[in-house]
Amino acid sequence: MTAPALTIEELTAQRDRARQDYLALSARGLKLDLTRGKPSPSQLDLSDGLLEAAGPAVAADGTDVRNYGGLQGLPELRAIFSEALQVPVERLLAAGNSSLELMHDAVVFAMLGVLPGAQRRWVEEPEVAFLCPVPGYDRHFAVCERLGVKMIPVPMTGDGPDMDVVERLAGQDPRVKGIWCVPKYSNPDGAVYADETVRRLAAMTTAAPDFRIFWDNAYAVHHLTDEPAEIADLLALCAEHGHPDRAFVFGSTSKITFAGGGVAFFGSSEANIRWWLSHTSKRSIGPDKVNQLRHVRLLRDAEGLREHMRRHAALLRPKFDAVDRILTAELGGTGLASWTRPAGGYFVSLEVPEGCAREVVAKAGEAGIVLTPAGATHPYGDDPADRLIRIAPSYPALPEVEAAISGLATCVRLVATEKLLATRS
Amino acid sequence: MTAPALTIEELTAQRDRARQDYLALSARGLKLDLTRGKPSPSQLDLSDGLLEAAGPAVAADGTDVRNYGGLQGLPELRAIFSEALQVPVERLLAAGNSSLELMHDAVVFAMLGVLPGAQRRWVEEPEVAFLCPVPGYDRHFAVCERLGVKMIPVPMTGDGPDMDVVERLAGQDPRVKGIWCVPKYSNPDGAVYADETVRRLAAMTTAAPDFRIFWDNAYAVHHLTDEPAEIADLLALCAEHGHPDRAFVFGSTSKITFAGGGVAFFGSSEANIRWWLSHTSKRSIGPDKVNQLRHVRLLRDAEGLREHMRRHAALLRPKFDAVDRILTAELGGTGLASWTRPAGGYFVSLEVPEGCAREVVAKAGEAGIVLTPAGATHPYGDDPADRLIRIAPSYPALPEVEAAISGLATCVRLVATEKLLATRS
Repeated sequence: MTAPALTIEELTAQRDRARQDYLALSARGLKLDLTRGKPSPSQLDLSDGLLEAAGPAVAADGTDVRNYGGLQGLPELRAIFSEALQVPVERLLAAGNSSLELMHDAVVFAMLGVLPGAQRRWVEEPEVAFLCPVPGYDRHFAVCERLGVKMIPVPMTGDGPDMDVVERLAGQDPRVKGIWCVPKYSNPDGAVYADETVRRLAAMTTAAPDFRIFWDNAYAVHHLTDEPAEIADLLALCAEHGHPDRAFVFGSTSKITFAGGGVAFFGSSEANIRWWLSHTSKRSIGPDKVNQLRHVRLLRDAEGLREHMRRHAALLRPKFDAVDRILTAELGGTGLASWTRPAGGYFVSLEVPEGCAREVVAKAGEAGIVLTPAGATHPYGDDPADRLIRIAPSYPALPEVEAAISGLATCVRLVATEKLLATRS
Repeated sequence: MTAPALTIEELTAQRDRARQDYLALSARGLKLDLTRGKPSPSQLDLSDGLLEAAGPAVAADGTDVRNYGGLQGLPELRAIFSEALQVPVERLLAAGNSSLELMHDAVVFAMLGVLPGAQRRWVEEPEVAFLCPVPGYDRHFAVCERLGVKMIPVPMTGDGPDMDVVERLAGQDPRVKGIWCVPKYSNPDGAVYADETVRRLAAMTTAAPDFRIFWDNAYAVHHLTDEPAEIADLLALCAEHGHPDRAFVFGSTSKITFAGGGVAFFGSSEANIRWWLSHTSKRSIGPDKVNQLRHVRLLRDAEGLREHMRRHAALLRPKFDAVDRILTAELGGTGLASWTRPAGGYFVSLEVPEGCAREVVAKAGEAGIVLTPAGATHPYGDDPADRLIRIAPSYPALPEVEAAISGLATCVRLVATEKLLATRS
């Protein structure tokens, strides 16, 4: 995004055209929502098998799934996801309908119970801090904020977090107890962690003996192209480098089956799983195995899961293509914006000139296009450069995505040209 | 349970007969399990409608239940349970599959976030203690133990906890932050709290400004007779007596529909609900609404729920009748035991002579009859008199219940007569 050298007159002409376009946009009375990474109704339809008759309520080992028990979750469902999440089935647990819950609870359990390798409970520490690669996922940040965990931003690169910064902060500061990672098709910038990034995360020396990587592999199988991204095996690398208990792996079917009625997963080392169960066994007599069995019958096996995800990709790809096509047509070569072209996941990151993001989101909102609040991609909602906007194109139908992105581009042109003119005058 | 005055010879004869009976019992090679309050397969069959095709995945207000959202749970399901749980629907939340989770999380949220009326988070208190009416529910005690909450036993009466003791302890000691209550058909003694008990709980002065009643109304609709017990409305009474935020109400369908795939409920005051949502909104994007909708379609309305519970009662009553019939036949008039005849719920409490409970449970186990460990009904697993045994007759088929109770009676006769002879010699 390098702005071509425009004269004041050219800029003014662009601004005036943007003003006209914005007036026309406002007159359309749109009501479009690009805020959250929600699957569309057509995507949900792919899993309507979950709504059909379930068949016998008996698991592979003869367990009556209707009754209590089975704290670790159905083995046959864990087997389906073991490969995708890169966790051996015996160390992969299947739980309720939300991986966010599991991440929240992992912090809570570390607060109130001594983690393997820890000297004390986190509530007894003077301060607990997490590294937060930015841009990142607002709900990760909200968990930290609610539980009093200080957040330290770390810049993202195309290969994952800037590992020089991560190694320095985690290596020197014993308050730093964790890092949030979305390693594949990262939220929101679509980055895929390079093998070397994963290796350095596993190998680095940390000042805190109980440092944990919160590995939110939310988009493990959510490819948009025919060449699925692969990431290195974090659990194996941690063990290999002498830090077997460093990684907490999370995943879910929220964007595979039903966003509100799926299954979440937690995987880790043997010691961490024992620790986890020592908490969850006091909290519950077991997850909803009926829903887990439904998932087994819908997805069948790892190949069934891949086939299912190809159908999602077929529905999502045209929307992501439209975002890129329209942004290119309306903003390409203007120097007013740059954006990501993710190969998977749920988001496009749009970068606008410094100090413009909030204003763009506000203008779009006034014109009926609701976007995730600017700043949401940063801890405490604060993007200091005010540049980043997260676009979530999955939920609306294609014509709505097109209308929304076109309108958003108009807002970018309007706000950015006004800003540039103001700085020049 | 007053032992008739027996001579040494009579006791010896009884002991010898018990020894013979125990040998015969052991020879039968039984494998019976009376440990947990699990619904039987026939009871689960009553809800097999949950396994059938769900119908359109659309809630009453048009919400697509397959997608994210709806943190408070489906309003139409909350409406069905509002009456039974005595919580206005707008202050009743429907959540995941386990009310134990909600109780655990209520303690966690109070530990890590400031409760309405609290001066600080509970982790900042020098000590947090809960009153534990005994006998009580082992899983309540396990939550306290895991989270470092000190437990103070309070004796149960036929009308609920001994309120003189409760008022004294809660009134004088600011460390006392809560009390566990199973107000209807209490676990394990079947007691139904008297109106005056509920009123005193609502009205009493507590030293802690953030004292909470954990009202686990697990058996709200689980009647065994045609005259359902009614309890006073705790939430209303708390408000009436100027303590609107004192009560946390919990319930679930675990023993109504599927033990492993039901829905749990949380109800409280407006301020507490706001506080609760301020935590859960950071933890999850919403519960499994698909399963909640299935429950609406199965149960239909409050009358549908009552009708459903009458079918449960028809399956459970013969088992509870058998327990009483066999204990009466084998132990009645011996002075060796007394037991409860609950009008609802899932348990029978068996009281044996002091110092005999552990031995009875051990002997039964050796003969293939597994019982809840003696002591489980008390905090830290410690029944100081070693007298109480919890019987859970719901799961096994009727002939198995009969065999198990008959065998258990044999063990009581054996252990108690040996004990009495030992104390006399």
